[in-house]
Amino acid sequence: MLILGVDPSLTATGWGVIRMEGSRLGHIANGTIKVPAKLAMPVRLSMLFADVSAIIRAHEPDDAAMEEVFTNKNPQSTLKLGQARGAVMAALGAGGLDVAEYAPRLIKKAVAGTGTAEKRQVQAMVERLLPGARPDSLDASDALAVAIAHAGMAGRNRMMEGL
Amino acid sequence: MLILGVDPSLTATGWGVIRMEGSRLGHIANGTIKVPAKLAMPVRLSMLFADVSAIIRAHEPDDAAMEEVFTNKNPQSTLKLGQARGAVMAALGAGGLDVAEYAPRLIKKAVAGTGTAEKRQVQAMVERLLPGARPDSLDASDALAVAIAHAGMAGRNRMMEGL
Repeated sequence: MLILGVDPSLTATGWGVIRMEGSRLGHIANGTIKVPAKLAMPVRLSMLFADVSAIIRAHEPDDAAMEEVFTNKNPQSTLKLGQARGAVMAALGAGGLDVAEYAPRLIKKAVAGTGTAEKRQVQAMVERLLPGARPDSLDASDALAVAIAHAGMAGRNRMMEGL
Repeated sequence: MLILGVDPSLTATGWGVIRMEGSRLGHIANGTIKVPAKLAMPVRLSMLFADVSAIIRAHEPDDAAMEEVFTNKNPQSTLKLGQARGAVMAALGAGGLDVAEYAPRLIKKAVAGTGTAEKRQVQAMVERLLPGARPDSLDASDALAVAIAHAGMAGRNRMMEGL
């Protein structure tokens, strides 16, 4: 089973693909989509859509996961983040994927064992849980973390079904 | 010159295409994109992307326009609106279109002569300015209003260039 994690933003969208075989995880690929900020918004969003679509075609993931957004930022930032997420989610939908969303605390807990883990701690655990993975950026590392959290939940759900 | 106006939302996205020849306006088409709310978010957004792409292919507009969002709503609504706008803008970008954004007051002023016009007044003026137009919904009427506002601005800019 292949899982695509995505950490969308307008400036740098991290992504990562991992493999889950039983309880074993493996790293497949990761990267960061950067779109020049000087381009017009529709162009930036269409490039984001195209790049996510290309990643789906290249890796054919079975599941996709993202961090849930609880936002207290200013409304204009929230709107822009929403637009980036909209372009990414439209690409996931066009690629036949639904998306599972996980709260930041839950992702930290799944990866580092505690919901209050710091960013560096999470990053270090991502590299430990996925031998050979060299996250392209902090955003790519976050994307791999979401994928790991999803693998944990998916694994648990399967066990529950087996009971 | 053909102008596409769009009024994006997750439940009902209005759209309208108008023609501008000199200072004369004409109605080409309008409609409302409704995506079943029970579907998963990525599917809904990919349908929105696909429908806007189909409208662009069918009418080949030269310009696109949207209402600017000044939002004081709760952050989760803003995020969802952003996601819908992201899917729509990605489709505009993929179709080679930039998007001009206009403040609500400016749109009302362009269509009804005053920035404090009520919704019904705007709707009535849209039908008067575009003979034969029967807006499919209030959202479609709003989309035609944005297109009219853009025609006004584009017309004015051309006059300025001619001076």
